[in-house]
Amino acid sequence: MDIKVKTDGLGIAVENILEMRPEAGRALDRLWSGSEPMTGWVQTPINQNKEELEYILNAADIVKDEAELFVVVGIGGSYLGAKAAIEALPKAERGAQVRFFGTNFCTDYYREVMAEIRDKRTILCVISKSGNTAEVSAAFETLKPLMIEKYGSEEEANKRIIVVTDPARGQLRAEAEEKGYATFDIPPNIGGRYSVLTPVGLLPMAVSGIDIRDVLDGAKAMAMSPVWDEGGTDYAISRHLMQMTGKHIEVIEMCHSRLGYLGEWMKQLYGESEGKNGQGLWPATLTLSTDLHSMGQMIQEGRQNFFETMITVDDPDYTVTVPAGHLAGRTIRELNEAMMDGVIRAHRNAGIPVVEIHMPQLTPHYYGQMLYFLETTCAVTAMLNGVDPFNQPGVEAYKAEMRKILGI
Amino acid sequence: MDIKVKTDGLGIAVENILEMRPEAGRALDRLWSGSEPMTGWVQTPINQNKEELEYILNAADIVKDEAELFVVVGIGGSYLGAKAAIEALPKAERGAQVRFFGTNFCTDYYREVMAEIRDKRTILCVISKSGNTAEVSAAFETLKPLMIEKYGSEEEANKRIIVVTDPARGQLRAEAEEKGYATFDIPPNIGGRYSVLTPVGLLPMAVSGIDIRDVLDGAKAMAMSPVWDEGGTDYAISRHLMQMTGKHIEVIEMCHSRLGYLGEWMKQLYGESEGKNGQGLWPATLTLSTDLHSMGQMIQEGRQNFFETMITVDDPDYTVTVPAGHLAGRTIRELNEAMMDGVIRAHRNAGIPVVEIHMPQLTPHYYGQMLYFLETTCAVTAMLNGVDPFNQPGVEAYKAEMRKILGI
Repeated sequence: MDIKVKTDGLGIAVENILEMRPEAGRALDRLWSGSEPMTGWVQTPINQNKEELEYILNAADIVKDEAELFVVVGIGGSYLGAKAAIEALPKAERGAQVRFFGTNFCTDYYREVMAEIRDKRTILCVISKSGNTAEVSAAFETLKPLMIEKYGSEEEANKRIIVVTDPARGQLRAEAEEKGYATFDIPPNIGGRYSVLTPVGLLPMAVSGIDIRDVLDGAKAMAMSPVWDEGGTDYAISRHLMQMTGKHIEVIEMCHSRLGYLGEWMKQLYGESEGKNGQGLWPATLTLSTDLHSMGQMIQEGRQNFFETMITVDDPDYTVTVPAGHLAGRTIRELNEAMMDGVIRAHRNAGIPVVEIHMPQLTPHYYGQMLYFLETTCAVTAMLNGVDPFNQPGVEAYKAEMRKILGI
Repeated sequence: MDIKVKTDGLGIAVENILEMRPEAGRALDRLWSGSEPMTGWVQTPINQNKEELEYILNAADIVKDEAELFVVVGIGGSYLGAKAAIEALPKAERGAQVRFFGTNFCTDYYREVMAEIRDKRTILCVISKSGNTAEVSAAFETLKPLMIEKYGSEEEANKRIIVVTDPARGQLRAEAEEKGYATFDIPPNIGGRYSVLTPVGLLPMAVSGIDIRDVLDGAKAMAMSPVWDEGGTDYAISRHLMQMTGKHIEVIEMCHSRLGYLGEWMKQLYGESEGKNGQGLWPATLTLSTDLHSMGQMIQEGRQNFFETMITVDDPDYTVTVPAGHLAGRTIRELNEAMMDGVIRAHRNAGIPVVEIHMPQLTPHYYGQMLYFLETTCAVTAMLNGVDPFNQPGVEAYKAEMRKILGI
């Protein structure tokens, strides 16, 4: 069993999808050709680097033995993939606590994490291609003296710093070589939002106790799946067509309480890949049933400028049963199913287009499948939209203004 | 100093705002008249019920003495206000841990919370007007036998159950009277999304250690503020006008890491009040600078169908300084300011309309001001849009389908 995608609830005529499959197939061929820039992520799970994987697993074992706290300094694509997986997936008991930092300029948050580091055996991990991102630089420079203070000397602190960065270039690589930090490589042909299956995502996941071999094997299974020849791009095509017909928001609905951050990861993947040239679907994420009690009214009766993508976990875990009341004898699982089916019916009755993506279980394997499927889908949609899925020219604008304000 | 709102970055001509002030003033008068249904929230902070406040504070003290864990069972308006305040505000050290439950049908989450209850001295609090909401009923019925098992008898369990519900009607009120639970009232003339300053929000806040008198006094200060005669409705008017000109998404940006759940509360407040009759602004929330590294590209160069509302905390806390690197000597606070100003400049350069809302500090007083300001704004915008801010006819649709599926 694999993840399953149903696009027949969108109200798009089958022939319109079929008509676009050849173009979507050509987009896939370009991704698979290996000759397009920034498509390294396509091959990574297929041609796994066993040596690097061993190195990650060994490092993770050392971290788990030595540290209570693993502070990951990184922002955007350098943390969302790992954060989402750690929230979603089951973990072996031995995992260290992973804390993400350098994700903002919030003094309160700085104080909180600095106090935790003073209190716990800590290993610091900085994830950044360049090391120049302001949030990351401020965080790393602030934590370095704290580590030296805590461990008595720069030498001892440096033993507890790991850097994930460009294999050759950039200030962080240079510093790592000078100071002797342990290092992992971010492949130069993989952008931040497509980097979850490189050391960027895999190292924090492994430290937390997730079986990263299973995640990679799931991604590989999706990469090699025959589905790509028979409808695997239909969700990508549908997203393109929805936008063309005035559905400008994609409401991504997570039907499991542990998938909230997968939604945040998807927001970057989709938004940053497609939001250019005055177009792109605005990705909005909800967790169900929770957010039906806040955004349900807007969906049902508000402006109909959106479609829904519902992500469900079909795991038949029927272990908790309501013992009394008007739902007596129902399992929580059964109620969740009824909720999801009720939503689909009510929204279709109102004419709202709904895509369904079903994960059989919330395991590392199927999670790996999802990641690869979503990355491929997003890249194909962007290509159908006529934009480059792998650049992000607009993110520099506020940074340039910020530098002017700071006079640097 | 009070919270300040700047609407001059929206690109709306001043005369267009001034022209609508009389209509917005009439909407305010209707809210203040006391004769409109479901407007009880307007008066609550002004005519504070001292007796009820004492009762809440006493109950909170007892909970803090007796329990390590305060499990609040409630969904939508019955938890978002308290959750947001607890995430945002400073607390006295004595607060008990507040855990929200009954917010989904997730078996994993059930197991997690049930294990915590077995482990910790617990008081259970159910917040629901009727008690019939499926999520709340399933959660409460599942936890009741657990409490009996833990405390040895139904009598002992019932001493540790608090109910916040309708003062006279509904199944939960009837059960509370039968079983002798401690009870608090939800005023019948206040809807869920406007109930944060009633026992619904105040009791969990007080248990967590928040000074709820300050929150209420802040709300009162805003209610009595002269600003309502001189531009206090301009944000409400602007939201109406933005929608009229094709800005269909309001991107609400929190510039402090503790305000994320205030955004979730706002999503319900805005979305459920305005999303009807085929209209309404889609409320999308971001936390800055974090989400500039995921959604920044889409904002800068994607489809321009949105405006931004930036909520900042101006608290000049300059206690953490970056010691080295290219940002050496800058405080984190200074970097946050430069980031916010950089964003405003870059986005205005791109023609994006931006509202600014400034909180002087993240204190209970200013937070109370914010809550009251946002509730009033939302109600006025909905009235300018020509819809009822206080109903939610669409939320029944999926529940009806769900009942059909369950055969109940």
